[in-house]
Order: sequence, then structure tokens, then C-alpha cells
Amino acid sequence: MIIVENIFKTRKIAALKKWTNAVDENKVDIEVIPLVELINGFDHYYTTSSCAGRLTIISKSAVRSKYHTDFIFKSHNPNELSIEKIGYPIEFKQKELWMLLEPPNFHIGAKNLDYAETMVKLALNSGLGKSKFQSISPGIVVEILGTGHMSLPLGFDGEMAVSKEYLKKVLKIASSMLEEEQIRLARFHEQLTKFNF
Amino acid sequence: MIIVENIFKTRKIAALKKWTNAVDENKVDIEVIPLVELINGFDHYYTTSSCAGRLTIISKSAVRSKYHTDFIFKSHNPNELSIEKIGYPIEFKQKELWMLLEPPNFHIGAKNLDYAETMVKLALNSGLGKSKFQSISPGIVVEILGTGHMSLPLGFDGEMAVSKEYLKKVLKIASSMLEEEQIRLARFHEQLTKFNF
Repeated sequence: MIIVENIFKTRKIAALKKWTNAVDENKVDIEVIPLVELINGFDHYYTTSSCAGRLTIISKSAVRSKYHTDFIFKSHNPNELSIEKIGYPIEFKQKELWMLLEPPNFHIGAKNLDYAETMVKLALNSGLGKSKFQSISPGIVVEILGTGHMSLPLGFDGEMAVSKEYLKKVLKIASSMLEEEQIRLARFHEQLTKFNF
Repeated sequence: MIIVENIFKTRKIAALKKWTNAVDENKVDIEVIPLVELINGFDHYYTTSSCAGRLTIISKSAVRSKYHTDFIFKSHNPNELSIEKIGYPIEFKQKELWMLLEPPNFHIGAKNLDYAETMVKLALNSGLGKSKFQSISPGIVVEILGTGHMSLPLGFDGEMAVSKEYLKKVLKIASSMLEEEQIRLARFHEQLTKFNF
């Protein structure tokens, strides 16, 4: 148990340092700052990653390529997901053009399994329905994750493969899905403020 | 610890009974039978759900409706994901027509956290990269989950919103993605046969 607590302390110090540097360098999404600072202020938790949910449009060399990915558009704001902001046709240089909608996603280190479980339950109760335990040793990390997502190709070999009309509709769906996910994230945030950690 | 072991035993007996009934009633996917029976044969594990990965085409009354969903097409077989099998245009009665590609997904009860961790690590090492711990108390359950997925609307209000050409390409991507995921699942299966549980 002492080893687990030492791992927790060491990792929390490292995570806080990394977070402070990222804030100083404007490398974090401002939307999540209050929630991350709330969590980091609790004795028994710290965050290692945080995303309020986002829509990205990327081009890549192959369907499952993790590398050589160009970000063409990225936004955490449901109000920005419109064809006026993104444009049509979308210019891209690599083989594949994809749109991804990802729900809110946080990784939170916890001091022990009981604290981890409390956090997962709070997230599930807030509607962030894919929240689970990412790691249980040596460090304990939970993943807070929503359910609303989309993943689809938009074009191939420099040409759009979907119509402007279709892209408009898909962005409208993405916008309302992201908005709903962020309402759930706000509910989670509110629950956390009430909790006596 | 005795309580945890009793919960495990009770749940395993119930899960095996449910599984046997489902097999008798032809309600399980034949692709996963050998893997499920291998896992259920281990003293320290049992499965509660199993899917080899699948493509579904569904129609539903609203984007996020969980209910009133019609299954128009469902297949676990990468070779069946073609426009010849599915047809174009696709007829549907509800407001939204969606295509979902889901990776292999198993839920496995484990006798204790160490056994749970062994199973998650085997899955991660086999490339089933979203495998995590679903529940750590009172029952311990891990989720084995791949990474390859797609989720996109195909039509609205009875009309297709994508071209035949686009659907062909998306199905080709889905087929190769599912095939790759099932290779990872086979790797996981092979690892399990070698393991001395």
C-alpha cells in the first residue's frame, strides 16, 4: 500500500508540473481548465489528459495510419461545426480525408481503487457512459469517456466523396451530439464540486 | 476475499447456464464459440458477452435513440460486406439510416484483480487496444475491445444521403478494418491457448 501511495505522489507531482507548463505555453484547451484544476486540487486525484470532446477533420496516408496525419480542422466548440467555418470542398493532400467526432475524454490518476471507483461511478451517473478503469497497477488510472461519436471518410485522393448537403447534415448532427456530451461533462463537473473528497 | 470468490462462483454458474441456453437456441454467433468455450473452461474466468466485431445498418427514430431501432443488415463476416449483399438504395422506414462498424467486444468475469489484469494485458498485446477494466467490485469484469470502428449516417427521411460509389468504398474500408480486427482477435485466442491458467 505504501508503494502504491508513493507511486501516486510521484506521478501526481509530475502530472501537475506537466499541466502547469502546458497552461503557461497555451497548450491546453481553455474549456477544460476549471475542471482539471478542480480535480488536481483534490488530494486523491490528478489528471494526465483532458479533452472536452472535439470534431477533427484529418487527412492521412492510409485508413488506419496513426502517423503522417494532417489536422485540417479541429474544434471543441459545437457552435463552430458548420460548413461556413470548414468550407466545401475541403482541400487535402494525402490519400484519405476523414471526419472524427470524439466525446469528452479525461484520464485521472487515483490514490487507490476505492477512489478510482467513486470517480468512475460519478462519471457514469453523469451520462459519460464509457467511463472505465484504464489501469489498476502499478498506477491507478480511470478513463472518463462519453458515448457520442462519429467516424467517416469524406474524400479520397484529393476529391470529396460526399456532397455539400451531406456534410452540412453530418456537421449538424455532430454539433448537437457534442453539445449533449458537453452537457454531460458539465453535470460531471457539478457533481464533483458537491463531492467531499 | 471469500465474498469476492463467492460472487465469482455464483456469477460464473449463472453465466455458463445462460451461455448453454443461448447455444441450444442458436442465439450465439458461431464464430465466437471456440473462444468463449476456451475462456469458460479456465477456472478463473467466464464470459458474459461476446462479439467478433460486426457491421450493422440500422434505422432509428433519432440520432441517439436506443430504442425503436430496426436492424436492416448485420454481419460478422468481412466477406459479406459488399453492396451486392446489402443493395442500393437501402429501404428504411424510420427517420435516420446509419452504418456502424464495431470491433470485437467481449466481457469477461475474473476471479481477482490479478487475473483481470493478465487478461487485459494479453488483449492489449494482441492489438485489441481499447481493452480495459469495466468493473472492479463487487464482481470483477474486463472489457476486451478492439479499436477499428466507423459510425456514419447513410440516409434521412427514407432517402439515401450518400452515393452508391461512396457506400461501396465505405464497405470496402469496413471489410478490411473488420478483417484486421479479427486477425487481432485470433492472435488473442492463440495467446490464450498457450497460457497456463
